[in-house]
Amino acid sequence: MLDAVPTLAQLIKTLQQVPYLANKNVYRLATYFLQLEPNKLEHLCAILLKAKEMVVRCEICFVWKEKDAPCTFCASEKRDCTQVCVVESWQELLAIEKTAGYSGVYHVLGGVICPLEGIGPDQLTIMQLLDRVQNYGVKEIILATNQTPEGEATASYIASKLQDTAVSISCLARGIPVGSSLEFMDRLTVYKALSERRPF
Amino acid sequence: MLDAVPTLAQLIKTLQQVPYLANKNVYRLATYFLQLEPNKLEHLCAILLKAKEMVVRCEICFVWKEKDAPCTFCASEKRDCTQVCVVESWQELLAIEKTAGYSGVYHVLGGVICPLEGIGPDQLTIMQLLDRVQNYGVKEIILATNQTPEGEATASYIASKLQDTAVSISCLARGIPVGSSLEFMDRLTVYKALSERRPF
Repeated sequence: MLDAVPTLAQLIKTLQQVPYLANKNVYRLATYFLQLEPNKLEHLCAILLKAKEMVVRCEICFVWKEKDAPCTFCASEKRDCTQVCVVESWQELLAIEKTAGYSGVYHVLGGVICPLEGIGPDQLTIMQLLDRVQNYGVKEIILATNQTPEGEATASYIASKLQDTAVSISCLARGIPVGSSLEFMDRLTVYKALSERRPF
Repeated sequence: MLDAVPTLAQLIKTLQQVPYLANKNVYRLATYFLQLEPNKLEHLCAILLKAKEMVVRCEICFVWKEKDAPCTFCASEKRDCTQVCVVESWQELLAIEKTAGYSGVYHVLGGVICPLEGIGPDQLTIMQLLDRVQNYGVKEIILATNQTPEGEATASYIASKLQDTAVSISCLARGIPVGSSLEFMDRLTVYKALSERRPF
């Protein structure tokens, strides 16, 4: 049926290339866009293109910032520039910011080391992090990569590179999440919580 | 953090208005768009706007079609125009077309009757369906709305409106899906399969 409506087929194909859309939802989304008022769709496109043009990465910490404004973190006097929290992406940064319990700055890696997908240390901002440690007076590095094999490997790689510097390195505590019961936790988490127990 | 990057905040807000995107994915998608090559993003926007302009609904069956081309179904000589399958939306039509087992035409309702959401018969293409039955020589109506309370109510409403016409009305068979076992079926489906049993 799609062959008979090539413009629609092209729209479907283009939407299928956008990640984080379940395949079933692509058809629904196409219908949504076709039913949308024309000016709303134009508005959506305008916002997309404007964001693409105006939002850039900070050259120091690689967090998104407005093109002609200083970085929220690096340029802030309220943030402690000697404490750097290393995260995989902007989404993890938002999760940490939500806690309102961190006053240092960040370093966004832009992913994790994953040889299977051809992502090595050079594709990430690890070189820039090492440079930052040496030249910007960083005293503490908090490795806050995700608890996945790739995340932990990336953290290990960064830690090994920072071995010979004076910077202190820490990583996030592992254990039982707040509000959950031991009964439903996986074995490895319980083991980690047990072996990394702390004085009460 | 978002307050400091208003363009990005605006992008997030706009994407949050698009349905079928999980809230977590909105942030990932925003990152994806910002990291995309500029020409690819422009291409995406161009496709969206072109589709919006070029793809319209057929005036008879309300299936999407190219603006300056005849409808795939209504204008086809291979399709039986006396047999009309009534579906909620284009996605259900695609599911039926995939079976390659139907050679009639369609009628897309554009939704289901749902008083809670303010959708009555007038918001759907039911009037046009009744008109079609009376003036286009339709002999059979297959009600293929979904097996939801709203879908069944809509089918009942259409059936009641067609009561006094000579058209024959049928609906999809209900029962155990192919490949599934009775053990894992819900009670109502098993009951329907039993009460609507057919000769072997």
